[in-house]
Amino acid sequence: MAGEFELIARHFTRPVRRAALGVGDDCALLQPGAGMQLAVSCDMLVEGRHFLSTVPPGRLGHKALAVNLSDLAACGAEPLAFTLALALPRADDEFLAGFAQGMLALADAHGIELVGGDTTAGPLNICITVFGQVPAGQALLRSGARPGDDLWVSGALGDARLALEVFRGTASLTGEGFETARRGMELPQPRVALGLALRGVASSAIDLSDGLVGDLGHVLQRSGVGAVLHADALPRSTVLAALPLALQRQCVLAGGDDYELLFTAPPARRDAVLAAAGRAGVAVTRCGEIVSGTGLRVLDAAGQVLPASWRGFDHFA
Amino acid sequence: MAGEFELIARHFTRPVRRAALGVGDDCALLQPGAGMQLAVSCDMLVEGRHFLSTVPPGRLGHKALAVNLSDLAACGAEPLAFTLALALPRADDEFLAGFAQGMLALADAHGIELVGGDTTAGPLNICITVFGQVPAGQALLRSGARPGDDLWVSGALGDARLALEVFRGTASLTGEGFETARRGMELPQPRVALGLALRGVASSAIDLSDGLVGDLGHVLQRSGVGAVLHADALPRSTVLAALPLALQRQCVLAGGDDYELLFTAPPARRDAVLAAAGRAGVAVTRCGEIVSGTGLRVLDAAGQVLPASWRGFDHFA
Repeated sequence: MAGEFELIARHFTRPVRRAALGVGDDCALLQPGAGMQLAVSCDMLVEGRHFLSTVPPGRLGHKALAVNLSDLAACGAEPLAFTLALALPRADDEFLAGFAQGMLALADAHGIELVGGDTTAGPLNICITVFGQVPAGQALLRSGARPGDDLWVSGALGDARLALEVFRGTASLTGEGFETARRGMELPQPRVALGLALRGVASSAIDLSDGLVGDLGHVLQRSGVGAVLHADALPRSTVLAALPLALQRQCVLAGGDDYELLFTAPPARRDAVLAAAGRAGVAVTRCGEIVSGTGLRVLDAAGQVLPASWRGFDHFA
Repeated sequence: MAGEFELIARHFTRPVRRAALGVGDDCALLQPGAGMQLAVSCDMLVEGRHFLSTVPPGRLGHKALAVNLSDLAACGAEPLAFTLALALPRADDEFLAGFAQGMLALADAHGIELVGGDTTAGPLNICITVFGQVPAGQALLRSGARPGDDLWVSGALGDARLALEVFRGTASLTGEGFETARRGMELPQPRVALGLALRGVASSAIDLSDGLVGDLGHVLQRSGVGAVLHADALPRSTVLAALPLALQRQCVLAGGDDYELLFTAPPARRDAVLAAAGRAGVAVTRCGEIVSGTGLRVLDAAGQVLPASWRGFDHFA
């Protein structure tokens, strides 16, 4: 069996181009641009909780980095670099080759590089910390939503949850429909370009990881506002739209693992929002309004209030 | 049982003082000083491999942060902040209270703060990423050792390994001697002040985590040099010094978990090294020389070559 240092060298060491110093010393060295703040986020993925054992290694590598890039997107930060800490039950060359390939392909697509990390034996655990830069004072925060703002969401919601329900056996899909939903779960596309384009346009933003209603709750709490959400206006794939309405609502309102951006902007900036989305090549949908006070009202297409039983994903619930 | 968000808030959320934005948004925001490079390091700790189940939670919290600060020390970087990702079998309030207390006490001692992270259910796993700053071009690297340089080490080596051997039942210690060795294993003191004082003095540095011989090998490889090491000149505690010489050599040469600094400096800088150590309040010992060529010769007190069977710790060996 190959040793730890050899495995790291084989699959993960590449020459650094942007960082001042990459893998191989005690620390990596990064040099943010003048006037830039460094944005940092960190996500830990555990088998059975954040991914299924059935996921192909390449898709797992993609997803582990994608969920972190999604946090940078939500701040409007330009990705720079990341570190990877990996616990593996054994030094599995085939797994690592696929994992590295999926991860580094996404890194290349965003022009970022792996600058350091750690590898150890242990129950499978993937911890990535990602670094980006944003001009001082321009980061998109959760705390900026104001009464009267529109509520927007990018892309389409619910496919990841739909695929999970199929794996759980509580929903049924076959062929191309299942593959579409499964790609939503295993190959999320972080909305980095949209986050950058929304700087100076959006008043607040968050990425959707734990389910829309729960994540929106964080924005409302930190902004000190309430919201009205139009459940049946939320964007969903044609696969999901062909299924029963109750399942659709569960998947789009409380699905989790969407990695789309939920953001707010004043109504006067609607054209600017659409222009930003156009530049980023991502669809955006207006789905509600920020109101004064507290609390969230979820309405159906007829304007009737839906029961407020949608909760965010709690990793210990 | 308390939910994830509540647990995080209770034990880990404190107001940030230095970071531009701390826990609670998609990203933390850091603002390195003008002309500074950001030093980043990341270590993952797994039960049974990096710590024993017998470790008190407060000491585990201390050690998890200490081993990361030790990497900053080895680069001569000033600590700024850290993120914590934590997988826990269950939301254990007592464990988290002790863990947070030990970790945050060490953070306070170094004037740094927790700026973000992640918590999830899963087999116990602690992943910390630490951030420091260093003036551009002044970081201590592994690649700077030159033939003729002295080889130095800080503090005393081997107590952590000695304690591990006692836990394993292959060595015997009682009372105060065991407590001293156990503190070496569970409460390492990162040599941050020494690393800062050695900027502009040392030609290379590394922190000792995997055992001196293996870690020295990284310096030799990256610097393209060889070394002569005087095994019996290596500093050790009075507890270890009272035990058989073979055990002493095993513990100081290949012990692991020392978290002392191994560094090189030209002989002309001996006074500067001693002055730096004095300012940092840490003992340093000269223990060998860098030579041209490759390879390491380990000598005993009589100048005889010891067999080169000491290997670094490989997490998959």
